[in-house]
Amino acid sequence: MLTANDPNRKSWLDISENSDFPIHNLPFGVFMAKDDHITIGTRIGDYAIDLGALHQLGYFEGIILPEDVFLQDTLNDFITLGKPTCRQVRNRIAEIFDANNSALQGNAEQRDIILFAVEEVQMLMPVFIQDYTDFYSSREHAFNVGTMFRGADNALMPNWLHLPVGYHGRSSSIIVSGENIRRPMGQSKPADADAPVFGPSKLLDFELEMAFITTDGKALGECITTEEAEDYLFGMVVFNDWSARDLQAWEYVPLGPFLGKNFASSMSAWVVTFDALEPYRVEKPAQDPEPLPYLQCAKNTSYDIKLEVYIQPEGGAESLVCESNHKYLYWTMVQQLAHHTVNGCNINAGDLMASGTISGPNPSNYGSMLELSWRGAKSITLSDGSERKFIQDGDTVIMRAFCDNGSQRMGFGEVRSKVLPAKE
Amino acid sequence: MLTANDPNRKSWLDISENSDFPIHNLPFGVFMAKDDHITIGTRIGDYAIDLGALHQLGYFEGIILPEDVFLQDTLNDFITLGKPTCRQVRNRIAEIFDANNSALQGNAEQRDIILFAVEEVQMLMPVFIQDYTDFYSSREHAFNVGTMFRGADNALMPNWLHLPVGYHGRSSSIIVSGENIRRPMGQSKPADADAPVFGPSKLLDFELEMAFITTDGKALGECITTEEAEDYLFGMVVFNDWSARDLQAWEYVPLGPFLGKNFASSMSAWVVTFDALEPYRVEKPAQDPEPLPYLQCAKNTSYDIKLEVYIQPEGGAESLVCESNHKYLYWTMVQQLAHHTVNGCNINAGDLMASGTISGPNPSNYGSMLELSWRGAKSITLSDGSERKFIQDGDTVIMRAFCDNGSQRMGFGEVRSKVLPAKE
Repeated sequence: MLTANDPNRKSWLDISENSDFPIHNLPFGVFMAKDDHITIGTRIGDYAIDLGALHQLGYFEGIILPEDVFLQDTLNDFITLGKPTCRQVRNRIAEIFDANNSALQGNAEQRDIILFAVEEVQMLMPVFIQDYTDFYSSREHAFNVGTMFRGADNALMPNWLHLPVGYHGRSSSIIVSGENIRRPMGQSKPADADAPVFGPSKLLDFELEMAFITTDGKALGECITTEEAEDYLFGMVVFNDWSARDLQAWEYVPLGPFLGKNFASSMSAWVVTFDALEPYRVEKPAQDPEPLPYLQCAKNTSYDIKLEVYIQPEGGAESLVCESNHKYLYWTMVQQLAHHTVNGCNINAGDLMASGTISGPNPSNYGSMLELSWRGAKSITLSDGSERKFIQDGDTVIMRAFCDNGSQRMGFGEVRSKVLPAKE
Repeated sequence: MLTANDPNRKSWLDISENSDFPIHNLPFGVFMAKDDHITIGTRIGDYAIDLGALHQLGYFEGIILPEDVFLQDTLNDFITLGKPTCRQVRNRIAEIFDANNSALQGNAEQRDIILFAVEEVQMLMPVFIQDYTDFYSSREHAFNVGTMFRGADNALMPNWLHLPVGYHGRSSSIIVSGENIRRPMGQSKPADADAPVFGPSKLLDFELEMAFITTDGKALGECITTEEAEDYLFGMVVFNDWSARDLQAWEYVPLGPFLGKNFASSMSAWVVTFDALEPYRVEKPAQDPEPLPYLQCAKNTSYDIKLEVYIQPEGGAESLVCESNHKYLYWTMVQQLAHHTVNGCNINAGDLMASGTISGPNPSNYGSMLELSWRGAKSITLSDGSERKFIQDGDTVIMRAFCDNGSQRMGFGEVRSKVLPAKE
């Protein structure tokens, strides 16, 4: 039997050559169709596919699935079934849309209730996130920020090379691609002032991140080892961890970022499974010093995922401002999850763990305006000739992620949010 | 009509004089009865009261309530009905159990299905918490910790007197009173070592806190002003924010506490409403410098709530190690909520926001072993003669909170957790 990943598989659906969604991807998401019904779906090419309807028509026969598992407004219950079941579903979807399978292909009436043009559906938040964790796992990013604030000699904190630094973020304000954000109000303290001032953030920034979504974990008090961690990784999204640098700088000592982050984070709508990412595994960067044993992992658990950030001014064209890659991350997701649970912290299906800004070795790889403008010391010129040090009202920030190993290409689509003026 | 708070109201139930649960309290919680049915309930004296059964018997007639609103395993749906409805329910409960009301009092059959001895029910987590925030609002605590690590002259960070410092915590590992915790494993770096070591935390600590639970808030992008904040405060619990000081010290720069905190936090089971706390309002401490306008609030929104911490060694007796008071907090809950949302961050019913350790002016008021032992420089002697600098395996930490204004007394019960040895 061909798995969903078989490179030779072709679909009977029309798929453009550079689509992020060939039949080898088959991500999961939640959408609302034109008739306002909400379902869990997948995507092939420019088609959103109604998994609830496929299930009702019996296409998942032989897989043990609750009747209403796709008739949900989040993926959580589906994820809770566990990775082996989710894998069966994904493989079955590949069979249904395989060029050699005429069952659905030849049934126009069924196709009409299962296939929707992606422009005609509204993508919704794919998961309910109880707990959101943000890591800080790009060495280049940590070094850049550390250099700006403490100089190159003290750039990395003493703990950084020994553990994947992370902190808890706000779940309620995570939104799906397409929703706009509002410039936050807040306190900041100008360098030359004696006291803080209140007003709209002047240093609004994006952070280019990716995030993984977990399955249910173990009970409180149990840990997940690096050997086990992949069993608990469901899928990934592109993630924009919006940051108000001026609010953050004033508030963050000693307990970390708070209002400088929790006004909004944006995520892409389609959750790409780790099964789909199998062909894009690569070796992780060398780790020196050697991590403590509980963080060691022999397997290749880094992924070659190309990342791009665009800024699109109001009414203007997109300008590429950053190209990076997920493989630059020093700490892997397996190490992050093992670290997160080594003290017995429990995880649940739908938890989201973000990477931290993913910067790379060259200035064109820097994943935030803070780094691209080097704390405002220089400007980025957009294609319309306008300049940016940070993000302006009316700007849309778009992040895209895709994999291409020469023989196979697939991607995540995009996360896009426009910045609305502050509400004063 | 008498409200639930009327000091002259008496109940037909037997209530011991110093009970935390007179008829003027009427907190909300969730319990499982001996027959394994789960319901939302309240407590009077030593009786747990089944609100689901009361509702089915028609006792809430005239109040607009979904049929199954009490047949839930969390208070979230009930809280979502809003404070005016919750207030109607609480006032109605007071009428049902008023000494002058014979309806239930005279019906033995109904009493049997409504009243349970508290020892015979199992209290469950009262709310599903999506987002948990921990503040750092005790000036005495911040000063003590700052003095230990930076000296008295630099004890308070420059931002501390201008905003209620806070950070996001882990929701999944919040447990209810009675559940035990496990000593966490993790990385720490001994002062004289070149590299971190891995093992059980050696500096396990409690933090004496209280927490408030919110109602649903406004949409993302809207703020809640200090004038509006009380409309969004549902109730309070006692909260033990367990801390592993050695893990925290190594990991927390620059993004704040993570594994040093997220292995467990314990909360009391009965949520005491702000309506019940009305008689205990007091003036807040003087705030100098004057806070920015968005943090100003003319009303008295501090509460006189007496706090106690006890350590009970395995098989031994309780020893009182700390007495503090909620009114010592520099930043009020109204200010905390206004600050939390001023950037547009949204809140939901069931969110939990904790105070941070509540220390007071005298050493006997210090709300953590870190402060009581002054970072391990001195020992606390327990009633059995044993000494503590931090918490040992087998110790049960018990926190109690109650209000007593001379004419009326009521309380929160307790939060209690025993520390089990690390799982190596």
